[in-house]
Amino acid sequence: MIVDFTIFPTDVGESVSSYVAEVFKIIEASDLPYEHHAMGTNIEGDWDEVMAVIKACRDRMLEQANRISISIRIDERKGVTNGIEKKVASAKAKMKSSNA
Amino acid sequence: MIVDFTIFPTDVGESVSSYVAEVFKIIEASDLPYEHHAMGTNIEGDWDEVMAVIKACRDRMLEQANRISISIRIDERKGVTNGIEKKVASAKAKMKSSNA
Amino acid sequence: MIVDFTIFPTDVGESVSSYVAEVFKIIEASDLPYEHHAMGTNIEGDWDEVMAVIKACRDRMLEQANRISISIRIDERKGVTNGIEKKVASAKAKMKSSNA
Amino acid sequence: MIVDFTIFPTDVGESVSSYVAEVFKIIEASDLPYEHHAMGTNIEGDWDEVMAVIKACRDRMLEQANRISISIRIDERKGVTNGIEKKVASAKAKMKSSNA
Repeated sequence: MIVDFTIFPTDVGESVSSYVAEVFKIIEASDLPYEHHAMGTNIEGDWDEVMAVIKACRDRMLEQANRISISIRIDERKGVTNGIEKKVASAKAKMKSSNA
Repeated sequence: MIVDFTIFPTDVGESVSSYVAEVFKIIEASDLPYEHHAMGTNIEGDWDEVMAVIKACRDRMLEQANRISISIRIDERKGVTNGIEKKVASAKAKMKSSNA
Repeated sequence: MIVDFTIFPTDVGESVSSYVAEVFKIIEASDLPYEHHAMGTNIEGDWDEVMAVIKACRDRMLEQANRISISIRIDERKGVTNGIEKKVASAKAKMKSSNA
Repeated sequence: MIVDFTIFPTDVGESVSSYVAEVFKIIEASDLPYEHHAMGTNIEGDWDEVMAVIKACRDRMLEQANRISISIRIDERKGVTNGIEKKVASAKAKMKSSNA
């Protein structure tokens, strides 16, 4: 499954990028495919694998902040290994062919 | 922590309430406090407790559908047992006092 | 359409309920059906009606905070006036009949 | 503000990429900076500009489907033009310096 998630502290003031940097280290130390974007990170793997990474990110952030916000969106399609890149590519390819 | 989550199949046609009913059974069979609302369900508990319920909901739905969408939003505040009801009550109380 | 939305400041410290109370006033002054729950508010109406309320909430919150987070989830079903209450009722009714 | 949004039909079966392709055309025809990722699209602009694009995407999708799901997440920071790229870059830079 592909999971888009965002995590940030809500009690540390306006700038949160140093907290997010701690979370990036955990994501990048995992073996799972991931893609950072401007508003979150996509990770791909089995439920337990992905949720273990997100829980580690949350544990780390709770060491540094008293209140945190997490948002998780999951698209799961049985029997399909999507590949994080494949989804955007698929829609872009259809867009091109319908323009032809 | 309080978790708001939504789960629905995306490949079974326009009506999804019979699928959602299966998920409600799992939520209501758990020991955790919960609150259904028009767009999802709030559950309160520790990370592992809440995520176990959501995973069970997802496993059940994947028995009935090939593609599912899950959305999870978490508000976690250290050392505070919020009580699902308490959050709305707190804002409503402040609203009244500022109207007084 | 039914819209579930959450709005909170992320730069004012741990407690945000006085800010949320300001937003509740705007929602409750609108003519649209709404339902507060522990993690957000559901509002029902046309796109322009609902988005005008959310924009007013955001404008108000930006008077009080420098950085805010908004989350909006929409379920839109053509030709159906769902009624905020109807969705939960429908799944609960199916749950009961499948238990019979 | 930067807005992450996802839109898909829920009544057309398992594959939705041809519907998403229609939406990509609208996003790319707008003048706003955007970034597609595996689970959605980030767009940057003023409230009215961004919401007009999302509404156009929703109108187009409702021509093709009876039921649609939309998710919108907004991070708004007063007086800051973030630049979609800047946010990831900022956290990555802090990650590197804390590893040094």
